[in-house]
Amino acid sequence: MGSKASPKRVLISHISFICFIVVPGISASSSADRVIGLPNQPHTPWVSQFAGYITVNEEHGRALFYWFFEAQSQPSHKPLLLWLNGGPGCSSIAYGAASELGPLRVGKNGVELQFNQFAWNQEANLLFVESPIGVGFSYTNTSSDLTKLDDAFVAEDAYNFMVNWLQRYPQFKSRDFFISGESYAGHYVPQLAELVHDRNNDRRRYPFINLKGFMVGNPVTNDNYDYAGIMDYAWSHSVIPDDLYRRSKQVCDFKAVVWSNECNDVVNQVFDKYSEIDIYNIYAPKCLLNTTSSATADKKKEHGLKRVRILAGGNDPCYSEYAKMYFNRPDVQKSIHADTRGVTWVSCSGDMDGRIPVISSRYCVEALKLPLKSPWRSWFHDHQVGGRIVEYEGLTLVTVRGAGHLVPRNKPSEALALLRSFLSDEPLPNHR
Amino acid sequence: MGSKASPKRVLISHISFICFIVVPGISASSSADRVIGLPNQPHTPWVSQFAGYITVNEEHGRALFYWFFEAQSQPSHKPLLLWLNGGPGCSSIAYGAASELGPLRVGKNGVELQFNQFAWNQEANLLFVESPIGVGFSYTNTSSDLTKLDDAFVAEDAYNFMVNWLQRYPQFKSRDFFISGESYAGHYVPQLAELVHDRNNDRRRYPFINLKGFMVGNPVTNDNYDYAGIMDYAWSHSVIPDDLYRRSKQVCDFKAVVWSNECNDVVNQVFDKYSEIDIYNIYAPKCLLNTTSSATADKKKEHGLKRVRILAGGNDPCYSEYAKMYFNRPDVQKSIHADTRGVTWVSCSGDMDGRIPVISSRYCVEALKLPLKSPWRSWFHDHQVGGRIVEYEGLTLVTVRGAGHLVPRNKPSEALALLRSFLSDEPLPNHR
Repeated sequence: MGSKASPKRVLISHISFICFIVVPGISASSSADRVIGLPNQPHTPWVSQFAGYITVNEEHGRALFYWFFEAQSQPSHKPLLLWLNGGPGCSSIAYGAASELGPLRVGKNGVELQFNQFAWNQEANLLFVESPIGVGFSYTNTSSDLTKLDDAFVAEDAYNFMVNWLQRYPQFKSRDFFISGESYAGHYVPQLAELVHDRNNDRRRYPFINLKGFMVGNPVTNDNYDYAGIMDYAWSHSVIPDDLYRRSKQVCDFKAVVWSNECNDVVNQVFDKYSEIDIYNIYAPKCLLNTTSSATADKKKEHGLKRVRILAGGNDPCYSEYAKMYFNRPDVQKSIHADTRGVTWVSCSGDMDGRIPVISSRYCVEALKLPLKSPWRSWFHDHQVGGRIVEYEGLTLVTVRGAGHLVPRNKPSEALALLRSFLSDEPLPNHR
Repeated sequence: MGSKASPKRVLISHISFICFIVVPGISASSSADRVIGLPNQPHTPWVSQFAGYITVNEEHGRALFYWFFEAQSQPSHKPLLLWLNGGPGCSSIAYGAASELGPLRVGKNGVELQFNQFAWNQEANLLFVESPIGVGFSYTNTSSDLTKLDDAFVAEDAYNFMVNWLQRYPQFKSRDFFISGESYAGHYVPQLAELVHDRNNDRRRYPFINLKGFMVGNPVTNDNYDYAGIMDYAWSHSVIPDDLYRRSKQVCDFKAVVWSNECNDVVNQVFDKYSEIDIYNIYAPKCLLNTTSSATADKKKEHGLKRVRILAGGNDPCYSEYAKMYFNRPDVQKSIHADTRGVTWVSCSGDMDGRIPVISSRYCVEALKLPLKSPWRSWFHDHQVGGRIVEYEGLTLVTVRGAGHLVPRNKPSEALALLRSFLSDEPLPNHR
């Protein structure tokens, strides 16, 4: 995945991740933020964790909530990895930390936590942030801020978060730093990386952050590639009939800023078909708990079809409901130093989400017309094909076979192998 | 699926089955063929079974081997269902009966049999035949017959089998009769149905067989649709890279009788990619037992790419190897009245197989240009989407979501629901 010294990149989506390497420490900690333990956390193994708020704008009173896990072994020798979920508006606590790749995952019905044997803090010090403000436990004291949440605003807050977090945890200031995330974080992650990269060039005004690369899973790129891919994927996976697919080819120009009514109608019909199953993991069962997310079908029509709430996958498709049950418990919130100010904590609160199929990522990467470094091949894990990989200059596209949208939940062992390869810059195995 | 009185049809492939309804009892039995029990068969429940040979051509000494299971309840009120596997050259005993839909399936390492709670003899009297001669325990005393096995020859033998089997089991002579099968049986099944249908019109020369319809799963249709679908499926499921797919579009005319060298090269490359995984169930693990089937890659090149041996799927991908171990035991062969004459019984012995993706079936059905009866919709099973269904005049296309090539093995409960609907002519549920 490129040389360690130079800027590099990688992406992973569906089924696939992309990593981009761009440019870059924790051992002690802010003791006030140390988490002694969460309710119903397993007694073993020991988990070294911290949680709390970092102010990102004093004047407006904006603060982002984080949950940080030291690496399970030799934390002073391991890199720092930031994880961001997408949505926009989905909680990195509910998804990344407590449902996907963190060491403590919420179990059935939100009753207890379970230790995740494939947690990514085996390989890195792991930092989850609820971003932007308005998501989960993150907040602003200036409500008009909530109307300004474009990508640049979000990146600026995230940058300030990192600068101030590194002030609180100075032992990480020079540590190798990587940014990762999934879905709409396909926007957040590269924009934050670019901001860090640019400001690293102006050391008189900004502190240096030792950014080494970034990685995005099933990333939102732009409507053109994403929706063209959604149509191709839905048709080729027998979700929609031939005539609907043909009609999408006839009436939709996804490059257009405003879609025609005919195209909107087709897209609506496609999402209607998807409302029957879990769009994020099409062969998995759908969560049938009677929850707020049953409003999905109506919501997506209100918001240009871009919102589908339930992110399902893994073994029990209701995991996000379980996370919601758990993190709404006052004893849980107290244990992680969270402040909900009497408001119900929601796992997703934004207005854009949608499964990003591997086909969309391929269209996007193809459009970059990067020089090929090594051709498409399978990579192997546990004597089986883990997925496929193709390396370009500065970017690697990797698929994870049989994974849904939440790769580290659906294929935890494969995802951890991929992370190990990404962080160490060692190639993924090319034989059984 | 059409009215019961008129000819009707259904097909199911991959992920999908197709049923065609065309036109038309067991209670006693040929006692000599009764099977008392097989070695390591579970003691309960009781399985009423018969096995043996039916001569199909006296002069040449051709005989087909069958394994028959009475329906689990009220056998005298249930229809008769014939099941044929494809290949050509794959055993209906090894696959259909002992790995997919029969009541007795071979367990791990071929040690014992397990009762299948989703066995299709819940719904019908179930007849498995090893067809044509040369497959499994079926034989000919005239070796030159083995060079003549075109579809018409196979259909003629199968027809004679049915006529003579009904002589031995006369209580089924007027019973509703259905034919089913998968893969290359996409040729065998309709050709046998056509022969029965045609000869039913000449009652002076031929006995009447009460054929009511047929059903084929993941059926081979013709190279044009099948290979176009294989390419689209491989690309859209991230098995092959974009450039290889584009090249297939440029150099392959699958309608041609002889493919160009360039096209053969592309197809070879596609099958090389597939050799890394289980082509019959692309997200399942591959069987890693060190068996004869490791010769796959070479074999397919010898035979115009059409042979891939391991039919994997279900929980343990090595099931076909287990069946081979079990049915090569002399005690097992004796218990079912089989005669191997010292030859090793093989589960597949033919020279054409290849996964038939749902896309291929859709291309084929589309080409029939049949009038639409009811549009594409999801059908439901156990509160989840079981798959999709679209009904044409005389033909129904049904997909089974998340199934591989061996639908009754991969999705046994869904497959049984589908069979029930097919036999009863009751629609599949259209809501959770």
